[in-house]
Amino acid sequence: MTVPIESLSINLATLRMQWNLREAVEACARHGIRAVGPWRDQVAAIGLEESARIIKANGMRVTGYCRGGMFTAADDASRQAAIDDNKRAIDEAVAIDAECLVLVAGGLPPGSRDLAAARRMVADGLTAVLPHARACGMPLAIEPLHPMYAADRTCINTLGQALDLCDQLGEGVGVAIDTYHVWWDPNLAGEIVRAGAPQRILAHHICDWLVPTKDMLLDRGMMGDGVIDLKNFRHMIEAAGFYGPQEVEIFSAENWWKRPGDEVLKTCIERYYAVCVNGQERGPSTR
Amino acid sequence: MTVPIESLSINLATLRMQWNLREAVEACARHGIRAVGPWRDQVAAIGLEESARIIKANGMRVTGYCRGGMFTAADDASRQAAIDDNKRAIDEAVAIDAECLVLVAGGLPPGSRDLAAARRMVADGLTAVLPHARACGMPLAIEPLHPMYAADRTCINTLGQALDLCDQLGEGVGVAIDTYHVWWDPNLAGEIVRAGAPQRILAHHICDWLVPTKDMLLDRGMMGDGVIDLKNFRHMIEAAGFYGPQEVEIFSAENWWKRPGDEVLKTCIERYYAVCVNGQERGPSTR
Repeated sequence: MTVPIESLSINLATLRMQWNLREAVEACARHGIRAVGPWRDQVAAIGLEESARIIKANGMRVTGYCRGGMFTAADDASRQAAIDDNKRAIDEAVAIDAECLVLVAGGLPPGSRDLAAARRMVADGLTAVLPHARACGMPLAIEPLHPMYAADRTCINTLGQALDLCDQLGEGVGVAIDTYHVWWDPNLAGEIVRAGAPQRILAHHICDWLVPTKDMLLDRGMMGDGVIDLKNFRHMIEAAGFYGPQEVEIFSAENWWKRPGDEVLKTCIERYYAVCVNGQERGPSTR
Repeated sequence: MTVPIESLSINLATLRMQWNLREAVEACARHGIRAVGPWRDQVAAIGLEESARIIKANGMRVTGYCRGGMFTAADDASRQAAIDDNKRAIDEAVAIDAECLVLVAGGLPPGSRDLAAARRMVADGLTAVLPHARACGMPLAIEPLHPMYAADRTCINTLGQALDLCDQLGEGVGVAIDTYHVWWDPNLAGEIVRAGAPQRILAHHICDWLVPTKDMLLDRGMMGDGVIDLKNFRHMIEAAGFYGPQEVEIFSAENWWKRPGDEVLKTCIERYYAVCVNGQERGPSTR
């Protein structure tokens, strides 16, 4: 194999039903995996210091911390609470030495039908937390989610939109590009090129789009089981100058979350080599 | 009420579980509705001539015939079969005096992960049927569907993409704009303006996006029950010069399809006046 396993990261949501953070990190290490992406609730469950210690003790790179955001709310107090919470998330990301804080911006506030206003709230929220992120040296990765989540998760639904925000906000903000959320976009190729110049790709998540998709949230596919051209996707991402690990993030209530964690990790590695890498990679960047 | 009910059309899929075409058309007439949008299977079930007779006898305008398209296929023979079938759909649309044939272009062919190739197949298929459509004077309305249908229904997922196809194909092709499919699009306002100059809006469907949406296909909402700003949507459509009827198309396996058809129609009319019209309309165009 020409591509080292250092190019593979495991988002720990993929194993959230099987293991806590310690168990998941140790399992990844057992399988030779060198990078993970933990979630805030997984860190909170065993404590921030202990999480940082386990990650460091296992020599794990943290390719992203999930997640901040959720800036949209119906009133000023709730919006301020979200800003304060994002500052705490930034501090946690620093404590576990994450390479970025992944942000899911927030959907329509309760009772609202005004997407444009929600989008302004996101820009305002990001503007409010950015000084703290910059002071901490923690990059913020805006993750556009599939348009089917526009109402309830995030009103940032295309890579182009996320990059417009980056242009507006300047230094310290970039994007997390997840194959699941953007694979359908007719402007994808051009927007990935744009994301690379200047370089704003901070994280890159992978999984597959199943046909049929039986649940809008919890039926993501293992790489190779769906219709996304993952090799071509990786090629575009690398052509745009991002050589960081591809981070497997699979929410799968009825399939992968029900299987033994070791089987999931073994499959992630097999599929990664079978359907993701091109065999012509320059190899991963080092930190 | 300043807006006449002539501005309201009922897509007969909304009543497909309650009534056949004859029953549905007669029920619409009973409720004072003057326009419908039938589906091919509904026409086939009672016969083309009889369908045309019933529609005419009830004085119904046909705001669109659903549907042609499905141009993407794994082999030449299947693609040719789709082209032939679209020509028959055009003839049927003429027979029932429809104002356009609505097209859902087709998703990825079986086994394919090549969205770009599927999109080329759509352009090729449209090019192949367009001479027949022009000769018959039947406008083709490309309907972009929500990106969650990119794999299995259509690879045309934004209004911008549909308009690019219109630009490429020229005379005789326009768009069907359904609130459900495009409401999330950050470029929506600009693309609706573009759709109006030159005028390419051939049909305009309405329903609402529910939160949560429990099924990706069959859980569309009645206007007012979801998060789409329908008054603003209508305002944008009218500002772009389209004053044709708004056509209610609701697929709702667990709710509206289970209610008595008369209740559904009564609710469509009530909601139309309550949450769709602005009170400042110029009024519907006449044919």
